[in-house]
Amino acid sequence: MNNKQKIYFFSQLQTDGDQNMVDILGGKGANIAEMCKLGLPVPPGFTLATSLCSDYLKTKSLSTSLKKNIKKNIAKTEGIIERTFGGSNPLLLSVRSGAPVSMPGMMETILNIGLTSKTIPFMIDATSGNERFVYDSYRRLIMMYADVVMEKALKLNKSSRPIRELMEKELDSIKKVNGYKNDSNMKAKDWKVLSEKYLKIVKKEFGVPFPDDHYEQLYGAVAAVFESWNGKRAKEYRSFEKISSSMGTAVNVQAMVFGNLGKNSGTGVAFTRNPSTGENNFFGEWLPNAQGEDVVAGVRTPHPIIDEKNSNKSLSVALPKAFEDLKDVRKRLENHFDDMQDIEFTIQENKLWMLQTRRGKRTGIAAIKIATDMVKEKLITKEVAVGRVRPVQIYESLLKNIVAEDLNNNTPVSSGLPAGPGASCGSAVFTAEKAEALGKKGKKVILIREETSPEDIHGMHYSEGILTSRGGLTSHAALVARGWGKSCVVGCQDLTIDKSHRFAKIADKKIKEGDQITLNGSSGDIYIGGLRLFQNPLDNVGPLSQLLSWADKIRKLKIRTNADTPEDCERALEFGAEGVGLCRTEHMFFDEKRVHEFRKMILAQDKKSRTSYLKNLLPFQTKDFYKIFKKMDGLPVTVRLLDPPLHEFINIQRKEMKNLANDMGLSLKLVEERVESLKEANPMLGHRGCRLGVSYPEVTSMQAHAIIGAAVRLKKEGKNPKVELMIPLVSNLKEFLNQKNIVLEAKNEIIGKSGLKINLKIGTMIEIPRACLVAEDIAKEADFFSFGTNDLTQTTFGFSRDDTGTFFPHYFNEEILSVDPFEEIDRKGVGRLMKMAVKDARAVKNSISIGICGEHGGEPKSIEFCKILGLDYVSCSPYRVPIARLAAAQVEI
Amino acid sequence: MNNKQKIYFFSQLQTDGDQNMVDILGGKGANIAEMCKLGLPVPPGFTLATSLCSDYLKTKSLSTSLKKNIKKNIAKTEGIIERTFGGSNPLLLSVRSGAPVSMPGMMETILNIGLTSKTIPFMIDATSGNERFVYDSYRRLIMMYADVVMEKALKLNKSSRPIRELMEKELDSIKKVNGYKNDSNMKAKDWKVLSEKYLKIVKKEFGVPFPDDHYEQLYGAVAAVFESWNGKRAKEYRSFEKISSSMGTAVNVQAMVFGNLGKNSGTGVAFTRNPSTGENNFFGEWLPNAQGEDVVAGVRTPHPIIDEKNSNKSLSVALPKAFEDLKDVRKRLENHFDDMQDIEFTIQENKLWMLQTRRGKRTGIAAIKIATDMVKEKLITKEVAVGRVRPVQIYESLLKNIVAEDLNNNTPVSSGLPAGPGASCGSAVFTAEKAEALGKKGKKVILIREETSPEDIHGMHYSEGILTSRGGLTSHAALVARGWGKSCVVGCQDLTIDKSHRFAKIADKKIKEGDQITLNGSSGDIYIGGLRLFQNPLDNVGPLSQLLSWADKIRKLKIRTNADTPEDCERALEFGAEGVGLCRTEHMFFDEKRVHEFRKMILAQDKKSRTSYLKNLLPFQTKDFYKIFKKMDGLPVTVRLLDPPLHEFINIQRKEMKNLANDMGLSLKLVEERVESLKEANPMLGHRGCRLGVSYPEVTSMQAHAIIGAAVRLKKEGKNPKVELMIPLVSNLKEFLNQKNIVLEAKNEIIGKSGLKINLKIGTMIEIPRACLVAEDIAKEADFFSFGTNDLTQTTFGFSRDDTGTFFPHYFNEEILSVDPFEEIDRKGVGRLMKMAVKDARAVKNSISIGICGEHGGEPKSIEFCKILGLDYVSCSPYRVPIARLAAAQVEI
Repeated sequence: MNNKQKIYFFSQLQTDGDQNMVDILGGKGANIAEMCKLGLPVPPGFTLATSLCSDYLKTKSLSTSLKKNIKKNIAKTEGIIERTFGGSNPLLLSVRSGAPVSMPGMMETILNIGLTSKTIPFMIDATSGNERFVYDSYRRLIMMYADVVMEKALKLNKSSRPIRELMEKELDSIKKVNGYKNDSNMKAKDWKVLSEKYLKIVKKEFGVPFPDDHYEQLYGAVAAVFESWNGKRAKEYRSFEKISSSMGTAVNVQAMVFGNLGKNSGTGVAFTRNPSTGENNFFGEWLPNAQGEDVVAGVRTPHPIIDEKNSNKSLSVALPKAFEDLKDVRKRLENHFDDMQDIEFTIQENKLWMLQTRRGKRTGIAAIKIATDMVKEKLITKEVAVGRVRPVQIYESLLKNIVAEDLNNNTPVSSGLPAGPGASCGSAVFTAEKAEALGKKGKKVILIREETSPEDIHGMHYSEGILTSRGGLTSHAALVARGWGKSCVVGCQDLTIDKSHRFAKIADKKIKEGDQITLNGSSGDIYIGGLRLFQNPLDNVGPLSQLLSWADKIRKLKIRTNADTPEDCERALEFGAEGVGLCRTEHMFFDEKRVHEFRKMILAQDKKSRTSYLKNLLPFQTKDFYKIFKKMDGLPVTVRLLDPPLHEFINIQRKEMKNLANDMGLSLKLVEERVESLKEANPMLGHRGCRLGVSYPEVTSMQAHAIIGAAVRLKKEGKNPKVELMIPLVSNLKEFLNQKNIVLEAKNEIIGKSGLKINLKIGTMIEIPRACLVAEDIAKEADFFSFGTNDLTQTTFGFSRDDTGTFFPHYFNEEILSVDPFEEIDRKGVGRLMKMAVKDARAVKNSISIGICGEHGGEPKSIEFCKILGLDYVSCSPYRVPIARLAAAQVEI
Repeated sequence: MNNKQKIYFFSQLQTDGDQNMVDILGGKGANIAEMCKLGLPVPPGFTLATSLCSDYLKTKSLSTSLKKNIKKNIAKTEGIIERTFGGSNPLLLSVRSGAPVSMPGMMETILNIGLTSKTIPFMIDATSGNERFVYDSYRRLIMMYADVVMEKALKLNKSSRPIRELMEKELDSIKKVNGYKNDSNMKAKDWKVLSEKYLKIVKKEFGVPFPDDHYEQLYGAVAAVFESWNGKRAKEYRSFEKISSSMGTAVNVQAMVFGNLGKNSGTGVAFTRNPSTGENNFFGEWLPNAQGEDVVAGVRTPHPIIDEKNSNKSLSVALPKAFEDLKDVRKRLENHFDDMQDIEFTIQENKLWMLQTRRGKRTGIAAIKIATDMVKEKLITKEVAVGRVRPVQIYESLLKNIVAEDLNNNTPVSSGLPAGPGASCGSAVFTAEKAEALGKKGKKVILIREETSPEDIHGMHYSEGILTSRGGLTSHAALVARGWGKSCVVGCQDLTIDKSHRFAKIADKKIKEGDQITLNGSSGDIYIGGLRLFQNPLDNVGPLSQLLSWADKIRKLKIRTNADTPEDCERALEFGAEGVGLCRTEHMFFDEKRVHEFRKMILAQDKKSRTSYLKNLLPFQTKDFYKIFKKMDGLPVTVRLLDPPLHEFINIQRKEMKNLANDMGLSLKLVEERVESLKEANPMLGHRGCRLGVSYPEVTSMQAHAIIGAAVRLKKEGKNPKVELMIPLVSNLKEFLNQKNIVLEAKNEIIGKSGLKINLKIGTMIEIPRACLVAEDIAKEADFFSFGTNDLTQTTFGFSRDDTGTFFPHYFNEEILSVDPFEEIDRKGVGRLMKMAVKDARAVKNSISIGICGEHGGEPKSIEFCKILGLDYVSCSPYRVPIARLAAAQVEI
């Protein structure tokens, strides 16, 4: 190893670097070195360290001593491969960049360096007269070199068109003249003619000839790789990803091997396990008589490495010896790296050469399967397995997806914000009523709306997916969709819906009611027509539950769920929830019969009639809570009292107003006036939450009676309900006390009759900045806190989640925001308030239970923050419970 | 002085207490003692200390030793007055309560104690046979005693009606039988007959006779006063006002003097100066041959003490000797108390007796005049004068008021929240258009709306007063009204406006367009009909400016104003503003021609056309700023960039939409769609403030060009503009930088041409909780901060100021809020954020200028808090500038 020159040699025999030297050798170089150390068949070569990059960028030249050192390493390479660079048995080289982090926008590869007018004849000899191969290689070299080295370095291209285009035009013209369909029809002489034309184009465009000296080619390529570190796209990418620009890229110079020397040659890519399913099968594709480029270009269809039908096109049948070698390499790589690898290989006349290995990307399903399998195979520990699966992969593993073929063959008509991941497909409908009507008949529908409101809930329930033209990632549609695990795309600015509710337009494409439409809620893409979907089976005794059971042993944060119905609770329990962190009582009112009764309560003119309407609702609510507490027996259930502004319930048509007027013995005009008077300028900051409970104490009282009544009934049946009654939107101790007293009164009324002891805590949601600021006061009286970070984020930023759609895109474009604070907790602002609240509350009541029930409760980075804050639990929608279980474990690792 | 028994004797000769012993003697007792110390003619007597009250309430009886001590003090009283209690020259006593703080709901007075079957004949003798006087006094004693002592103590009243009512019925019946119109027609025998009937009623109703023993009467009265400390209303009042219930009330026992012994007797009340105007005139009323009760009852019309017409009914003419004595008392009291006094006196056969003195209540005008006069008279120092006037009195002194007579003779039809103080009167109109049309013709109108929006501004401008059915004290209507010093009543829940905009109803009274209506914006009362108004002249060289000039020397906080026009600036300068703390640029767009142009900008489909519409607005805005900077030459002017949501500007009718469509060459449908798409769920938290500037940088750029362009023009003219450009609604350093860069670009463009140096600061409004939380970041880049406490209060509490009308009344009723946080800064919540922001900002940039420009900037307690926080200035509406000047001085005292 030559420290002074910082060039690291690698070969099967001797290697300077290893996999830990990523900073010096780049990712690619480090992995190549490691393969060499393992004794795998890697074409020899050497890596120019990243530090040489900044040296070059200072002087814009390769120093004499560096060149000398390169030559020394070429000599070592020659010695091992037994060919000579520029000699009569010519060694050709590849030059590849390789930064410590994967980075698009940099020059990647130049192949076949060393082909000159002098070495071409030798090369033809060395390949037993394979003139076609040699000229094909030569024209590739000229094009790549002209494009990436000369065009950028010389900047002399007078033509308005890039050099690559000019050259491709020549190739097309030869093919046309000769009536060739594919490049494979090209004959040796055709490639030769083309090469000559290329040389002329280079001369004409750059004013200098294509370098005919092998070292000149090599130095030019190395310099171009270094130069590309400061390319426009690379710089932008670094600035965006906050990658230091002083890092530099390494350069890998390696002996060429050829997969296109005939039927005993070939090239391929493979994964050591199936990256889609995770199954422990060797999974890959290869092409006989081809170079890597050909596999990537997609002109020829590659064959599987192992074909179930044992087709003779499979590598195992076609080149069994090389296949056996490859199988052996696969096993050694997995044993060494303890992870699934993504590899590239070339077979040159039956001899296997390994060109690359790296950690293989995989689907969620595969990540889980591989991690758990590897524990069974004793390759990794349970902790490593838990740490290796990204939380979002769990979510992915449970979703519907568009079949890959359909995904490739269709172009989205437009896109919106990916609000509810997973794909969905169905007939377009434009009203909740229609969605419900068709959905009840078992028809799959996609509900398309400007935005949704609680009035649309029944229709959303029957929809496969939801598409809106307005709203952000935490708009009503998005929240409901994620809560139910439904596919959803929101804020599609190209979407306009006709007021007739019979058709819509997306970017000038008309969609009529009943037309098929497909949403990809993971990407935000929207497709016209019905694309095929698939879903991986959820296997509760399989790898996922295995992995999560390990996670459960590691994590300390409890995981609860946000669930409003016994069905939600059931699903959440299946996913491993340890309680309900948020049960929203308002959703219970949306049943047709009840909402009518509830509306009467809202429109009541006095307390007496209001109380009588509430009395009608009491048995319904009691039954709701009974069922939920029963389902969650022995586990805590946090029930939030009525929260949304009342007018959300009376966003109704004239017909229902008439019904209500008749039913209540009021004039229609009076009902209309009352409905009108309930409208608010800023409902989010209006008459809602505990403010309703203060104005209408009878509502709080009814809900308290229902909750406590249900608990008492279960207690009498020998069950163990654990009730946490939560008062929403508190910003002031006195508000809390006002409501707490109503609840305690209800308790005394009920318990007085039953004589039972029930497990009842009374706490509050911390979702207003002032609640954080006076947490010390509130904590003295509250049994628990639960952060409502959706609303807390809204008020801390002054952002209405329903209105961010208009300015958030600009905020992301202008890099004012890098992440959506409604997705990931804003630690600096919202987080500072939370920290104050936790500190002040614990200072007066160390035992106070504190959790979070906002959408953030299911987001891994936010879960990490909750752990840092010292919260007791996080609560999230049922579908996010598995994610949270994993994320909470990873925080501890 | 008898410490053990805690009874304090007072008389002209010897007195135990003084004015500093309010806690022990109560307010009344302490002032009586002080008068005695001054040697003023006070009927002798003694005060039972407050501590005796709790002694009594424990045992529910007066101890033997206390009774003994009372007797000892009676003896001293007898010695001085030369009459005996229960004796042949009978001493009658009054018993009065007197707590340390004035407190309604307690028993106040029982007179004539000591009249019994034994002493009545003596009393007749002692008054030269004035039988009528004695029986009149007796029946008063029986009624008062039965009502306040016996009814409450014995609770035996079987009748459903109170004893007082039964007795009054008897009086009426005697008057009816004899055909008397007034009590003055009653003869001696009539009073005697009535007294006998009263004695029978007492016996019948309570089952016990009226006490005929003088000591029994006295002890009963004393016990009743103590008892009344725990009366229902008194307890409620204490709880509401947070007065300790252990404080107790004192009891004053005093020799009776009689103003109803003939034409040489009388009684009266007076102020040592005019409490309405503050003029140094002796001001009061008296009744000859009358007791205090008669003045209060209002049956007879009292005469002035000094009558300009020198009528022989004036005290100065009728009883010149007593008047001279009273004049002397007046002078001695003022010299002693250094303040205007409110006194009660009685003249018994030409002899003046002082019954009470206390600090006199006064109007704003009077407070100012008295304070400044007293400085001139060398009674008080300038500091005392500045401290003595309440800031709100300055405001009052500048307002229109309803003429007292009309106020007394009219009953309000309903009331709302007092949103803009001062009275107004005019024809009712229901649209801004009508208000403008009539107002332009010089007609006085009151604009009546459900609520107002910026669209109504033009109509509000032409209205005398504004009345709304919705909204709270910081609703749009309230803010605009206070900014312009207009009378305004908001949130009148009895008000409904017909959709035809031709009539309204207030509590079932119909008001048609054009009907006269009067508002009292100081109390919230609404009157149907036109009441007469008066306004005190504003005299800038008079007492107010005198007082404020003293205040200016004391205060350290600078006072700026919120002003949007040169006219506002002019008014504010007159009021003493030292700069503009908030100039809202949006109001500049409301001119008809400009708003049309501005709407085109809003509806523009692309940046190019938007920029061209903005270009049309640039000269207008430049001129606006030029005028304002010129008016404020040499003083800082903080200009806020466009803040409100755009849809506020396009709340327009179909006709204007058509105009716009024509003008812009767009289809009406497109305009309608665009208008629709700008609507927001929660505009307060939506696309406004710097969020507009981020999405439409060309708007910021235009405004920056106008502002800087205007400054450059003035600079060239030799003026000295001091511009502070303020970016609104920042919650994030990057938002601020984004906008700052646009401003700096504009500056470079303009300054590059002119080569001038201008005084330009770029800062931000701190009005979002997150801005406080990240103040450290923002302070590094901002030249100044200005707290926008209206919005900060909205977001910190999660209260929309437009929607608090529905729940704030409950919040005050339930005592969840004791003050409106939009009126007075909430120190605990909002204040804590402000404190953090100031601390964090000053930690990184000690020199940063910090002020406040919310409504709170003109509120005295909030000004005090701003001083505590260490702010540099407060800014408020022009009309509040004088208040702020005074309040800021008082903070320093």
